[in-house]
Amino acid sequence: MRTHYCGQLRAEHIGETVSLCGWVDRRRDHGGVIFIDLRDRSGIIQVVSDPERTPGSYQQAGDLRNEYVVQIAGRVTKRPDDSLNLRLGTGEVEIYADRIEILNAVRKQLPFQVSTAETETVREELRLKYRYLDLRRERMSQNLQLRHALNKTIRRYLEDTEGFIEVETPILTRSTPEGARDYLVPSRVNAGEWYALPQSPQLFKQLLMVAGCDRYYQIARCFRDEDLRADRQPEFTQLDMEMSFMSQEEILNLNEGLVCHLFKTLKGIEISQPFPRLTYADAMDRYGSDKPDTRYGLELVNVSDIVKDSGFKVFADTVAKGGVVKILPIPGGNDLISNVRIKPGGDLFKEATEAGARGLAYIRVRDDGEIDTIGAIKDNLTDAQKQELLTRTGAKAGHLLLFGAGDAATVNKTLDRLRQVLGRELNLIDPDKINLLWVTDFPMFEWNADEKRLEALHHPFTAPNLDDLDDLKTARAQAYDLVYNGFEVGGGSVRIHQPDVQAQVFELIGLSEEEAQNKFGFLLEAFEYGAPPHGGIAYGLDRWAMLLTGEESIRDAIAFPKTQQARCLLTGAPSSVDGKQLKELHVASTHKPKPVVPQN
Amino acid sequence: MRTHYCGQLRAEHIGETVSLCGWVDRRRDHGGVIFIDLRDRSGIIQVVSDPERTPGSYQQAGDLRNEYVVQIAGRVTKRPDDSLNLRLGTGEVEIYADRIEILNAVRKQLPFQVSTAETETVREELRLKYRYLDLRRERMSQNLQLRHALNKTIRRYLEDTEGFIEVETPILTRSTPEGARDYLVPSRVNAGEWYALPQSPQLFKQLLMVAGCDRYYQIARCFRDEDLRADRQPEFTQLDMEMSFMSQEEILNLNEGLVCHLFKTLKGIEISQPFPRLTYADAMDRYGSDKPDTRYGLELVNVSDIVKDSGFKVFADTVAKGGVVKILPIPGGNDLISNVRIKPGGDLFKEATEAGARGLAYIRVRDDGEIDTIGAIKDNLTDAQKQELLTRTGAKAGHLLLFGAGDAATVNKTLDRLRQVLGRELNLIDPDKINLLWVTDFPMFEWNADEKRLEALHHPFTAPNLDDLDDLKTARAQAYDLVYNGFEVGGGSVRIHQPDVQAQVFELIGLSEEEAQNKFGFLLEAFEYGAPPHGGIAYGLDRWAMLLTGEESIRDAIAFPKTQQARCLLTGAPSSVDGKQLKELHVASTHKPKPVVPQN
Repeated sequence: MRTHYCGQLRAEHIGETVSLCGWVDRRRDHGGVIFIDLRDRSGIIQVVSDPERTPGSYQQAGDLRNEYVVQIAGRVTKRPDDSLNLRLGTGEVEIYADRIEILNAVRKQLPFQVSTAETETVREELRLKYRYLDLRRERMSQNLQLRHALNKTIRRYLEDTEGFIEVETPILTRSTPEGARDYLVPSRVNAGEWYALPQSPQLFKQLLMVAGCDRYYQIARCFRDEDLRADRQPEFTQLDMEMSFMSQEEILNLNEGLVCHLFKTLKGIEISQPFPRLTYADAMDRYGSDKPDTRYGLELVNVSDIVKDSGFKVFADTVAKGGVVKILPIPGGNDLISNVRIKPGGDLFKEATEAGARGLAYIRVRDDGEIDTIGAIKDNLTDAQKQELLTRTGAKAGHLLLFGAGDAATVNKTLDRLRQVLGRELNLIDPDKINLLWVTDFPMFEWNADEKRLEALHHPFTAPNLDDLDDLKTARAQAYDLVYNGFEVGGGSVRIHQPDVQAQVFELIGLSEEEAQNKFGFLLEAFEYGAPPHGGIAYGLDRWAMLLTGEESIRDAIAFPKTQQARCLLTGAPSSVDGKQLKELHVASTHKPKPVVPQN
Repeated sequence: MRTHYCGQLRAEHIGETVSLCGWVDRRRDHGGVIFIDLRDRSGIIQVVSDPERTPGSYQQAGDLRNEYVVQIAGRVTKRPDDSLNLRLGTGEVEIYADRIEILNAVRKQLPFQVSTAETETVREELRLKYRYLDLRRERMSQNLQLRHALNKTIRRYLEDTEGFIEVETPILTRSTPEGARDYLVPSRVNAGEWYALPQSPQLFKQLLMVAGCDRYYQIARCFRDEDLRADRQPEFTQLDMEMSFMSQEEILNLNEGLVCHLFKTLKGIEISQPFPRLTYADAMDRYGSDKPDTRYGLELVNVSDIVKDSGFKVFADTVAKGGVVKILPIPGGNDLISNVRIKPGGDLFKEATEAGARGLAYIRVRDDGEIDTIGAIKDNLTDAQKQELLTRTGAKAGHLLLFGAGDAATVNKTLDRLRQVLGRELNLIDPDKINLLWVTDFPMFEWNADEKRLEALHHPFTAPNLDDLDDLKTARAQAYDLVYNGFEVGGGSVRIHQPDVQAQVFELIGLSEEEAQNKFGFLLEAFEYGAPPHGGIAYGLDRWAMLLTGEESIRDAIAFPKTQQARCLLTGAPSSVDGKQLKELHVASTHKPKPVVPQN
């Protein structure tokens, strides 16, 4: 039905007769000459109809309205010199429409105009309900196309350069109540039993390594029934990889190759290798975060040793109880940030307390070298201690020093948050900069205070650092996260392949052998039959697509996303279902206020 | 950890020092010289160790057992002339093992030997439970690799040659109780409501066309909660495609290009275009099937008009009541097929009655031109009628003619079944032959006798043939199936894009406007806003992989399949779940005999 896509046409096509199909982006009637912007996936081309030059189409051109679907046959013509449009790829030419056929009309009032939606703000609920109109917009169409290019580029690199094999793993699988909540699916054939949708293909990819698959990848759909955050979806897509006979170092190198290739291919950007690396301990120490945005400074400084013997009881007691005192030094902050913002009621104070801090102490360094601070610090720290704080933080005239004091987790959370707010506010972030960073040496375990037990920080199959086998409790894991401008975009680990180490880990997290067998018995048994050393990684592709398209919402990088209430506004999922369906599945809803009613 | 894969090594590597990783396929001790077949994904290489040439590895070589995981460093050496193994790609060389490191041992008795499983038959339950061992076998490893190549080849062709965009559509979506049974997922956040897993991305791909996506594809997971047949799985993978502004003819041509490319790339086989086409009516007439295996003849012949006025009441009454009488003529069948098999108690009689036939009449054509048949035919047909039967069926001396009489559906089913059985038995099928065939012009509707209403044969969005708009009830659909050696491997249609035609179809299948709105309202609304003409197709990739690997079970083309009871023998899914999980989901099991018990 067509000879070209709209966006392809250039001066070289002048004189050709073409047939185009697409949507009327806009139609303008300039006193007897009708201009139609015709749009398809590839872009927009201007079509012209008037009674003299194109008598065969003028009638139909008059009937057209925005978003009508048309087929247009015409001649590619050079635009008059005074109407070239250099913002459009097709802006040197226009089509004289010899024939216009309306393939479909618009029969209802459009909920929003597609052609002007780029500049007008449309409510997100409306965009999601009429997603098929939203996706017609150039921005969203480009997002889908970039996401496609992302998948394509990943696959080809892994297949052609690194010998990975794509294997599909089941979606209807077994519930492993570990980590997040599972989505469950009742079985009709096996009454009373349930499938679970996978939180990740973790167990299957490890089994594939035991099967000798050697290098596996999959662009896999995963499911977590969590309370949703802004950038979470009930179902999400991850690039899932696993490889055998490779050390952590080899795995990181291979992945750097992949990531560099993605930036080169998709954005034309060269990233140098190796990527910087930061241990978890250093990342927490210097940034208060295991996913620091390293595009700007504002590094934290630990001053616990300086203030531990000071007369300021808040600091001294904190250190005595095992807590820490850290400083976020802000060059120039003295002039830029007022006391009102730092004191109770101020926005920065609020950020700090929302992160768990009980207050926000500060020191201002004046031009004359004098310092200005809260009374408690002024009165209770010695001059030597004050001087040491300035030296340690490298503070110069104009610096503002913000304090965090308390348990390490809260201090880090507080100062990380303030660092991010101020980094943005003070324009310290170069938006064109791309910082990729490996965070390594995560601890194997963290303490779950509620359940009073150690918990695997990544998952219980993560291998410990071989140097730390003597005391697994405090061991570092062979685990790594990839951080991209402050977002965790991937994470993985070398896995345990020795049954004795695995048994020790289960013991430490308080999993009895019986429980372990019940949950992961099939994996543990597989490991008895010759498991190779192996490790892997998974990347959140929705987030990658969001970052690469420059969007701020993950929903703008997904064709048919759900809201934060886990609803699809387009289809109305989830919905009530026919009682007969539930009966066949041997289940009933226990929800009282709004019982399930048959739909028809 | 390694320099080469095992299967890569050739004479050109002789003299090189290599490091290999893999599994011990077999270990043989030939009086002081130990031979190890080392296996990885790529194949097998022979490793040698003895006290003289490789003193550094002889001790470890002695410790090895089948399926141990090892790393071997050694020298590539030419095999002695008398021990070349030309069946192996690596058969000209062997490795002198300077160092062997056991990376992991086998700690339990293997449930079956991997190395001999190719020649021994292992129970399928055992293969599925220990799938990770089963997948180590060369045959299964090759199957996974071919399936990977299938996906890869499809994607690249559609992306590079045809400009398709891959878009991911939701797995958690809305139940549309049409066609097969849905798998349902209770929503925790929206109590009392349910998601459904998609039976196909049908609605989303049509919405993507409305969105201007133009050409969409996805290798998509689909779910149908049906009672399982031998080649069905609860979840399956389909290549899903949809395209705008294309006629049926253009869609078929594009798809032939894809299929030819697959055979060329994966099997080195050239298929000529265009593929043969058969209308649904012709296929049913000539083969009694809408997915005929056209690699052999044995075409059916309709003789209703010849026998309708005969004295044989079974035939005459059948035709009078609107039924048909057809013949399956079998050249040489006279000698090859005994009366015992055709008469009550015989295997062919049984096939016929299982297909619904009430008997199996026959005519044998003798060498002298005489015919031999059941009394009822002999006595009640005129010589002219008998002669006409022979002429119409092209019967010659030695032919056996089998009769089907009854309603068309039963006759076709019966004779199709007999045709397939005899085609195989009489070796009429060339296993190397590849017959691809489009079956077109399916009827729009079929009569659902239970519900006494017309039913959409494909789905209610299928467009009618434009020549048949006057009477939609009997209209042919713009629907097509691709048939490969008697297997339906793909099917699709041009879709309705005009709301008025869609409304007519819903009316004909007895769907009230309210029901239609309730089920597909969002799609129907989308069609009001400028839907392009569009159509698509879907291919069952599990079946494609089965056929291309030469397997007879679809489970052998899937990494982690489920049994016909919809169970995964490896993970034990589905399983009972913790009562707490169900409570959070606002659901309860209504299954009485075996209530859900918390697991821990």
